[in-house]
Amino acid sequence: MMDTHYALPQVMLEPVVRAALAEDLGRGGDITSQAVVPVGTTARLQLVAREAGVLAGMDVAKLAFMLMDNACNIEVQQQDGADLLPGTVIATLQGDAQALLAAERTALNFLGHLSGIASATRPIARAIAPYGTKVSCTRKTMPGMRMLQKYAVRVGGGSNHRFGLDDAILIKDNHVAIAGGVRAALTRAKENAGYLVKIELEVDTLEQLDEALACGVDMLLLDNMPVPMLTEAVQRIGGRAISEASGSITPENAVEVAKTGVNQIAMGWLTHSVRVLDIGLDSV
Amino acid sequence: MMDTHYALPQVMLEPVVRAALAEDLGRGGDITSQAVVPVGTTARLQLVAREAGVLAGMDVAKLAFMLMDNACNIEVQQQDGADLLPGTVIATLQGDAQALLAAERTALNFLGHLSGIASATRPIARAIAPYGTKVSCTRKTMPGMRMLQKYAVRVGGGSNHRFGLDDAILIKDNHVAIAGGVRAALTRAKENAGYLVKIELEVDTLEQLDEALACGVDMLLLDNMPVPMLTEAVQRIGGRAISEASGSITPENAVEVAKTGVNQIAMGWLTHSVRVLDIGLDSV
Amino acid sequence: MMDTHYALPQVMLEPVVRAALAEDLGRGGDITSQAVVPVGTTARLQLVAREAGVLAGMDVAKLAFMLMDNACNIEVQQQDGADLLPGTVIATLQGDAQALLAAERTALNFLGHLSGIASATRPIARAIAPYGTKVSCTRKTMPGMRMLQKYAVRVGGGSNHRFGLDDAILIKDNHVAIAGGVRAALTRAKENAGYLVKIELEVDTLEQLDEALACGVDMLLLDNMPVPMLTEAVQRIGGRAISEASGSITPENAVEVAKTGVNQIAMGWLTHSVRVLDIGLDSV
Amino acid sequence: MMDTHYALPQVMLEPVVRAALAEDLGRGGDITSQAVVPVGTTARLQLVAREAGVLAGMDVAKLAFMLMDNACNIEVQQQDGADLLPGTVIATLQGDAQALLAAERTALNFLGHLSGIASATRPIARAIAPYGTKVSCTRKTMPGMRMLQKYAVRVGGGSNHRFGLDDAILIKDNHVAIAGGVRAALTRAKENAGYLVKIELEVDTLEQLDEALACGVDMLLLDNMPVPMLTEAVQRIGGRAISEASGSITPENAVEVAKTGVNQIAMGWLTHSVRVLDIGLDSV
Amino acid sequence: MMDTHYALPQVMLEPVVRAALAEDLGRGGDITSQAVVPVGTTARLQLVAREAGVLAGMDVAKLAFMLMDNACNIEVQQQDGADLLPGTVIATLQGDAQALLAAERTALNFLGHLSGIASATRPIARAIAPYGTKVSCTRKTMPGMRMLQKYAVRVGGGSNHRFGLDDAILIKDNHVAIAGGVRAALTRAKENAGYLVKIELEVDTLEQLDEALACGVDMLLLDNMPVPMLTEAVQRIGGRAISEASGSITPENAVEVAKTGVNQIAMGWLTHSVRVLDIGLDSV
Amino acid sequence: MMDTHYALPQVMLEPVVRAALAEDLGRGGDITSQAVVPVGTTARLQLVAREAGVLAGMDVAKLAFMLMDNACNIEVQQQDGADLLPGTVIATLQGDAQALLAAERTALNFLGHLSGIASATRPIARAIAPYGTKVSCTRKTMPGMRMLQKYAVRVGGGSNHRFGLDDAILIKDNHVAIAGGVRAALTRAKENAGYLVKIELEVDTLEQLDEALACGVDMLLLDNMPVPMLTEAVQRIGGRAISEASGSITPENAVEVAKTGVNQIAMGWLTHSVRVLDIGLDSV
Repeated sequence: MMDTHYALPQVMLEPVVRAALAEDLGRGGDITSQAVVPVGTTARLQLVAREAGVLAGMDVAKLAFMLMDNACNIEVQQQDGADLLPGTVIATLQGDAQALLAAERTALNFLGHLSGIASATRPIARAIAPYGTKVSCTRKTMPGMRMLQKYAVRVGGGSNHRFGLDDAILIKDNHVAIAGGVRAALTRAKENAGYLVKIELEVDTLEQLDEALACGVDMLLLDNMPVPMLTEAVQRIGGRAISEASGSITPENAVEVAKTGVNQIAMGWLTHSVRVLDIGLDSV
Repeated sequence: MMDTHYALPQVMLEPVVRAALAEDLGRGGDITSQAVVPVGTTARLQLVAREAGVLAGMDVAKLAFMLMDNACNIEVQQQDGADLLPGTVIATLQGDAQALLAAERTALNFLGHLSGIASATRPIARAIAPYGTKVSCTRKTMPGMRMLQKYAVRVGGGSNHRFGLDDAILIKDNHVAIAGGVRAALTRAKENAGYLVKIELEVDTLEQLDEALACGVDMLLLDNMPVPMLTEAVQRIGGRAISEASGSITPENAVEVAKTGVNQIAMGWLTHSVRVLDIGLDSV
Repeated sequence: MMDTHYALPQVMLEPVVRAALAEDLGRGGDITSQAVVPVGTTARLQLVAREAGVLAGMDVAKLAFMLMDNACNIEVQQQDGADLLPGTVIATLQGDAQALLAAERTALNFLGHLSGIASATRPIARAIAPYGTKVSCTRKTMPGMRMLQKYAVRVGGGSNHRFGLDDAILIKDNHVAIAGGVRAALTRAKENAGYLVKIELEVDTLEQLDEALACGVDMLLLDNMPVPMLTEAVQRIGGRAISEASGSITPENAVEVAKTGVNQIAMGWLTHSVRVLDIGLDSV
Repeated sequence: MMDTHYALPQVMLEPVVRAALAEDLGRGGDITSQAVVPVGTTARLQLVAREAGVLAGMDVAKLAFMLMDNACNIEVQQQDGADLLPGTVIATLQGDAQALLAAERTALNFLGHLSGIASATRPIARAIAPYGTKVSCTRKTMPGMRMLQKYAVRVGGGSNHRFGLDDAILIKDNHVAIAGGVRAALTRAKENAGYLVKIELEVDTLEQLDEALACGVDMLLLDNMPVPMLTEAVQRIGGRAISEASGSITPENAVEVAKTGVNQIAMGWLTHSVRVLDIGLDSV
Repeated sequence: MMDTHYALPQVMLEPVVRAALAEDLGRGGDITSQAVVPVGTTARLQLVAREAGVLAGMDVAKLAFMLMDNACNIEVQQQDGADLLPGTVIATLQGDAQALLAAERTALNFLGHLSGIASATRPIARAIAPYGTKVSCTRKTMPGMRMLQKYAVRVGGGSNHRFGLDDAILIKDNHVAIAGGVRAALTRAKENAGYLVKIELEVDTLEQLDEALACGVDMLLLDNMPVPMLTEAVQRIGGRAISEASGSITPENAVEVAKTGVNQIAMGWLTHSVRVLDIGLDSV
Repeated sequence: MMDTHYALPQVMLEPVVRAALAEDLGRGGDITSQAVVPVGTTARLQLVAREAGVLAGMDVAKLAFMLMDNACNIEVQQQDGADLLPGTVIATLQGDAQALLAAERTALNFLGHLSGIASATRPIARAIAPYGTKVSCTRKTMPGMRMLQKYAVRVGGGSNHRFGLDDAILIKDNHVAIAGGVRAALTRAKENAGYLVKIELEVDTLEQLDEALACGVDMLLLDNMPVPMLTEAVQRIGGRAISEASGSITPENAVEVAKTGVNQIAMGWLTHSVRVLDIGLDSV
């Protein structure tokens, strides 16, 4: 089970969940429940996994229900990080039927997507762990969802790259081209970077790699390198920088990549193209 | 090419794009470009498709660049709805290098995701059109992105189900259970629904279907029915309501489902589990 | 008494009420109560109707008081939809005097206006009900208040037309003129409308009406037609579309209009020119 | 014509107008114009008064159109404060048809309501001016609209009472009761009020009035006094404080009240129960 | 101890405190506490004064902690306005260690700054009180902090000048120059000012003063006058207006200025250049 | 002069400046300029330094004026980072007098405070540069102003510590106490920290220092150490970590501290207790 020190405080979740509820409720609220469900009806419902995976986003889902019915009773049976099997009961809710049904889709949209990320991350994280390699996500996130998506990656056992443009320097090909080469780019970066900021450089060739190592750099992003080239790159780095592989890495070839000894494997698809985990809300 | 009457006005896009830029810029802005790119450098960049697909979100991407450099020059070469091939140049930008590189990821996150939706939608829409069937999306969307995701489905030739809880009545299994059956649920719905609101009911069995038809209803959601049962259902409906199939429908079996004569095929994965379309930003 | 399935959840009310309190409190808060009312004073106050009418907005008013003093005790004696007489006690409040007096005007502004709408709606709704006709409101609302005003119309027994531009199609004279006639406009609308969206057309003449009926349409807005012409129009429609009368309809002539058999009577003044219901807050 | 030093800067109008457009556009935008109006159609439209009155809110209406089509051309023919006759052309617009029709209702909602206020205010202001009396509004405003409603009162020639709870002290009956009398309330107020803040006291009897005058006060709100009593009150005040009459004052009896010599007449209905001025948008 | 009728309601504090927490928590939350503090650890902490001063902002600090851990227990030992000595325990907190440490800096930033203002204000307020003079602040505030800074001045015994541009008229040198002299400026101001609004004029010379007194004005801002000239100015005013000295007034010369008999001393530095009061959070 | 690659994009400044203008304009706008300045008057004004210092915030001030009058002409004569002398003209503005005077205080509040920070930072930065030491700021900032205050420190030649709780790990005394010692805290931090995140530890004693060095750490915060102890600490570190001195460091003793060879000197007062730089706006 996940180590819960990764939990986000409610004060960070509230604006996102309120906005999502407002998006769904529109200007008239849940006209179906208002019309069909007798006022004052109590519902007893269960969040149930429909397939195997890793739970993430339980606090977010819970908040969605609580914001619609602050008197509802929610028994959380599985915490974020839990392994789910088809049929695993995640939580049991009892409260106002109109309110809970109105919150259902919002809660499930968060829960399914975040659990989808955690579920995609964990098997990769576990498979490459024996080689000392970790999986990480990128800034290729859904607009507005970065905080939560990065959290879900952590729940799945992955690590986070930058939260945004301001918390680390990542020099990519366009920067190198404009700066006039690897050395020029790294020199400028070191002069201007804050002393708490790490510097990473993307390299496509071993020549660029050597040039970067000669200058010194905290991390090297080894982009789209075939496995033999990646192996060579990791050896040349020799622990002088953190190495990170990216580009065309799939669950299928991740272990092969990890065997090169690279420290990190970056996978954008974990946040931009991941499949939802199927979780439902059943009457009980 | 897409009929542009679906375009959203800038006043609707601006809050979303500003929020996404703020999420990425954080409290320090793009410290990489600030450090590495000499002030006043002009960049000439091109948005280029790296794979085949359908473009959606060009106005959003353009706005992201314009909000960072309102003097930049953007030549839009492909409009939303255009068929892209690997290498198709979508737009050419010229402007302040620091600003455009800072906007890059935000612009691409919108553009790749929305184009991914349109690209997934179009082939299905075309394949089932000969049978008079249309593909539609659901409320299983990314929180905060519903407006844009629904737009991308339209660009791809799909149609939109509800925007939210307040613009149509959709009576699902939980509602039926609470209301005490199909007839009771429909009766309550008709009494309470606004006169501009359509009523749809989810049915799982042919018995429920007959009961609903006897009551009268605008639309019927035929959930998780095997093709033979679906065929029977469509025949029983006989045009008295719009028919919509949902559940376990994939690009592979969509045509088979369409051949049942169902009016609509609902596909949640178009918005909750779709793959990004790979689009890049190259220096030129 | 009103059927409370029309109640809006607190999560929808909170942003509006917080904004209204902020508007009134400004940058210094209630300097009168701060200066004049001794700290810690408890007040016991009653919301009292000063004239007869229909209550609407009690949840909103209650929230205004609770946001200023979350420990105050509010006994709600009348629910939304209740018939009020002069002197009817609506609710009794006990709590911090400074806080409750600071919330007074905000609470009363909501309560008086929304009750004014419900009070204007109910007698009309009742008078025309025997003829099978309903009264509805329009989009001629106070900016920012649409959700609440539409709710108050429902409390008064009226029905809601569109919540906004995106939940139904209403083709008006300007659209017809630009599209090149009724047939052209309706044809375009049907091609492009979502399958959950109803289409309404405004007609000023019987010729337009016939043309619309020939094309088929969900609803017809019969604008500014004298009663005999309206009667003729309703007969020609013959149940093939919902009929709605609008323009120059007052409480005085509403029954006469209803007798034509029209389904709906639209009245913009219910939301744009309605008189407040006089409700006061008295010390007890 | 109105003295334009009352104009509000655009930076104050923008949040209100953006919010109103968002309320109307919802999650799908103007689906009618998108469906019916061919893309790229140019419309030429005129804002036209349908009845006589005083114009207010032209900047707000203009901004609504500009935010939907920032390339549209707007020729403003009448400024705020202008006297309108039935048929007076207020402004001529030329721009994108879809955009302008989408903005129409929002623009007219502001313009009609604010002009309604100015139109109600001006005749009263003019009728009582010969007696040295001015008409003023109260805090009985539409939530979220106070800034604009107070502006419209100024356009009509009225003056504004408090903008909110923090810019003047107004001691009402509940305050007096809690403080333990007029003298106690005024003493506390003077001790605690800021030196830039005026103090007003509501009195219902001549005894209270005398007590207040003995203490000294900036303004006296003479609430619900019959004309003879009001005359006596004004004489007793004798210029030692600004006098303000309130309660049950209508356009019909305003002059009679003014003849008492009272300085101000407060009318809550100008902002809470005013009739809209009928203004339309016509194709030309 | 401070008279608590100056307290601001929580509904006014919440947006500011939520924004400050969000600014500090960023997109990842408190990664230090998450990494280092075991989940579920309870902390017992005390807010302790490290130097002598006057407490202000306790409600704000408390809210910061409560928003991070709404189950934490806070025993407030000193109220706003209390005199603090080095070592005075202000409050004792017990709650979730991760949450409280995450809130620490935000709480202390508010508390230290606001207490700094109160601590700077009180000795001056007390020193000049014997001469009937009060100290006041200006609009030279930290953007976004005006409400709270003005509150802290009140806690320290000072009085507030304008909250903003809209609650009083202050005619400064640039206005006089543009209007064409003191008389012209005052005449225009009186014609246009609301009847609840006081008018203040800045004068630099005795000639301007005489001209202003001849016209009549509520307040006079005597800017940068040497003490003898100020004495003369106060005498000429002779109680016909409130007098206010500003410019180059320090704690050192404040008493000398007060002895001129001026009513108010304005000090911009109380809000724009004040030193923080050192308050710490200690484990106990 | 400052290297302008530190400039923040307008999209980051706009929300802060709009909020500050709204705070000052309130619900009525600038009633002084409206009343006293004739409509249509053009003003020609200059921002002028009244004392020597370093300019910071020119983009922010410019934006404040532009948001009030987007047609005004602003000639910027000094860029951020420029050395100002008393009388240096910073910028010349020509535009609508009402608008520019309304923006004056907001613009000056930003400009004076940010220039105050840059002016305090630069002499220290220059004085300690010969010893290879840099000055940095902390998270002791004004709520809502962190982004801008950190920017002003950079303009003055200082460097930034963390922007917030999420972009680096800083283990302070409370964390060490809860974790059970330096080694335990560092071990937990390394296990849990992201690979892009640096780890800093606060130490008060040389024993703690040795323990930290034995574990390995990126940075060491040497808190409140007397100079001889600091010298010893820097020697023991021997380049194995970045060293940072904090606590009781003033402009007066900064050079002495720098001579110890410490890499960074942290000064909280630069953002929490700095004096404004006096800049005025004069008619020309």
